[in-house]
Amino acid sequence: MTAIAVADKKKDNSLNNKPLGGAGLRGQSAGVTALCTVGKTGTGLTYRGYDITDLAKHAEFEEVAYLLLKGKLPTQAELDSYKQALKEARGLPPALCQVLEAIPADAHPMDVMRTGCSMLGNLDQEQDFSEQWEKTDILLAMLPAIICYWYRYSHDGIRIDTANSGQDSIGGYFLEMLTGKAPSELHKQVMHCSLVLYAEHEFNASTFTARVCASTLSDLHSCITAAIGSLRGPLHGGANEAAMAMIEQWQTSDEAEAGILQMLEQKEKIMGFGHAIYRESDPRNALIKAWSEKLSKDVGDTTLYAVSERVEQVMKREKGLFCNADFFHASAYHFMGIPTKLFTPIFVMSRVTGWAAHVYEQRANNRIIRPSADYTGPEHQEWLPIEQRS
Amino acid sequence: MTAIAVADKKKDNSLNNKPLGGAGLRGQSAGVTALCTVGKTGTGLTYRGYDITDLAKHAEFEEVAYLLLKGKLPTQAELDSYKQALKEARGLPPALCQVLEAIPADAHPMDVMRTGCSMLGNLDQEQDFSEQWEKTDILLAMLPAIICYWYRYSHDGIRIDTANSGQDSIGGYFLEMLTGKAPSELHKQVMHCSLVLYAEHEFNASTFTARVCASTLSDLHSCITAAIGSLRGPLHGGANEAAMAMIEQWQTSDEAEAGILQMLEQKEKIMGFGHAIYRESDPRNALIKAWSEKLSKDVGDTTLYAVSERVEQVMKREKGLFCNADFFHASAYHFMGIPTKLFTPIFVMSRVTGWAAHVYEQRANNRIIRPSADYTGPEHQEWLPIEQRS
Repeated sequence: MTAIAVADKKKDNSLNNKPLGGAGLRGQSAGVTALCTVGKTGTGLTYRGYDITDLAKHAEFEEVAYLLLKGKLPTQAELDSYKQALKEARGLPPALCQVLEAIPADAHPMDVMRTGCSMLGNLDQEQDFSEQWEKTDILLAMLPAIICYWYRYSHDGIRIDTANSGQDSIGGYFLEMLTGKAPSELHKQVMHCSLVLYAEHEFNASTFTARVCASTLSDLHSCITAAIGSLRGPLHGGANEAAMAMIEQWQTSDEAEAGILQMLEQKEKIMGFGHAIYRESDPRNALIKAWSEKLSKDVGDTTLYAVSERVEQVMKREKGLFCNADFFHASAYHFMGIPTKLFTPIFVMSRVTGWAAHVYEQRANNRIIRPSADYTGPEHQEWLPIEQRS
Repeated sequence: MTAIAVADKKKDNSLNNKPLGGAGLRGQSAGVTALCTVGKTGTGLTYRGYDITDLAKHAEFEEVAYLLLKGKLPTQAELDSYKQALKEARGLPPALCQVLEAIPADAHPMDVMRTGCSMLGNLDQEQDFSEQWEKTDILLAMLPAIICYWYRYSHDGIRIDTANSGQDSIGGYFLEMLTGKAPSELHKQVMHCSLVLYAEHEFNASTFTARVCASTLSDLHSCITAAIGSLRGPLHGGANEAAMAMIEQWQTSDEAEAGILQMLEQKEKIMGFGHAIYRESDPRNALIKAWSEKLSKDVGDTTLYAVSERVEQVMKREKGLFCNADFFHASAYHFMGIPTKLFTPIFVMSRVTGWAAHVYEQRANNRIIRPSADYTGPEHQEWLPIEQRS
């Protein structure tokens, strides 16, 4: 059984009201945060009190990274100097390139991100918590290059120069490293919006993983490496990749409608819809959807955007379900020429800001996260010498 | 401020009764387990109902690994075939060696373990949960070689042959890879006991990290990599290393007593004493202490064991505190010639069994672990264009 199949089976279990151990701590507070609210005020998502719609419409990603990591929106001078620092931190160390070259082309790109981040911890170790901001900036600067260096080397046999790029934004730098060309203004704007939307989302599973790791007072690279591992799971990251795999199989809107109806009838899981916390809509959807439409016109697409819209309509009509942040990300990334398997690594490039900000919070007011468990195993068992066992 | 200094500061905070966010989920159930009880019955620690004292006195580590991973103690035939399978899985793939060679000698050994485990995930990906037992066995087989290959290469310039060893146990294999010589029977017995004692401990922070990661239905290597990152933290693993650093500075028992009294007066943290859950004693202490004494006689030590015993007496007399599993591990490992900085990696070689068994449990009855948070940040903040900020 594949992991996805297991996921669906478990989902069914929960629908059948089987007892679920610990029930995933749902609704239980595991700490405090000043970073984010989900489903409480405004359009439903705020970063340090700012509405996601304002941030996604007006801010560069680096402004939002600054807000999350340093606590306030930057002035122009602060933003300029922050972007300059990120730019200067970009070039991958040779030993990290050596590691990326050892990873085969058929590896899972999230395993590459996890390994690249972990390796960086060997080369640029956080010796003291006073270094946390600097180490985060280096991660932010290098994560796009980590995935692109591996991708271009393993798929095209090319060693890219990760230190040299005229791009002054993380999104622009990623696209340039991936394609070898300076990206258009439109593509850079879409990347800003996308990275802003994915930056932070309270105590989701990957962020909570980072906080549990941080609560042992481990180093930043351990926390981020752990979080990447959690985001890799099909119940967490990767929904936009699954949505892409679904929508690209249809050639027309009518075909898509027939396909969705059939999937619903067969009770197949349709990725990119609904949300654990949002009840009526995901505030991130309208923002990325607008860019997907613009990109569709830009590339002269007559299929994928129309198919996506039809899927959205059918899901609303048939199941009352809304698109979450992931659904229109699929077509948007696709229109920019990004290979589907790199979608979740982009999530990492963005969410590393939220993860790191949560690590800082955990450290500032720490108690080791060590819950209890309900024991369901055997009571006392007598030791049996090996020759008496069966 | 160092991480340790921060740890002490936080500890002081908790003593001052400052409000602590979420309070580390202490006493809250986060799930069910059939693997382990801590502080409930028998001498205080059981694996699947078997008392730790029985297991540590009578079982090889591979028997305990089998018990945790497969649910029952093996027959002789099952144990033989399990040990054979582990032996055959040992040789590191060349790409993993390439990665380990890229890691500098001054890296943190736990960063090496984390990176080696993560890299293995690229080369030996778990494609389906039906492979979980096989992938765990490969990890169990390779983790000793991962740390030894890096250590010998970076410190001595030697590429060890990880595939060839006459040792049929994980502990023996580790010692042979580390020293290049077949270990004595005594050393192999100590390794069995040590690995058994460290194998499992309910929902400690690293195990809980592995379960949170598993709850996204991520792969085994992500879960174990994440757990290694948590064990690295000074509030979790590494207490035996800190104990070693303390005891090796004293030349006589009287010097040790004076040193401890001075540390207590200055309210310094003394590692290897007390426990979050055990109240009167740690059942693992007597077991490893007996081996430490034997090893002390074996090497003709006249200092370190006596110093350790005196520290134990003084801590009992002055503070009513008992040794935990870590304290006599320090001298025991030292007598076997193991470099102090490899103590925590040995913990990984053992605990990987508990981590993996918890991953299986989480997968078998999963709900994504996604707690809530108490929001303490600003209420709505109006968006300010960058030129209006200060």
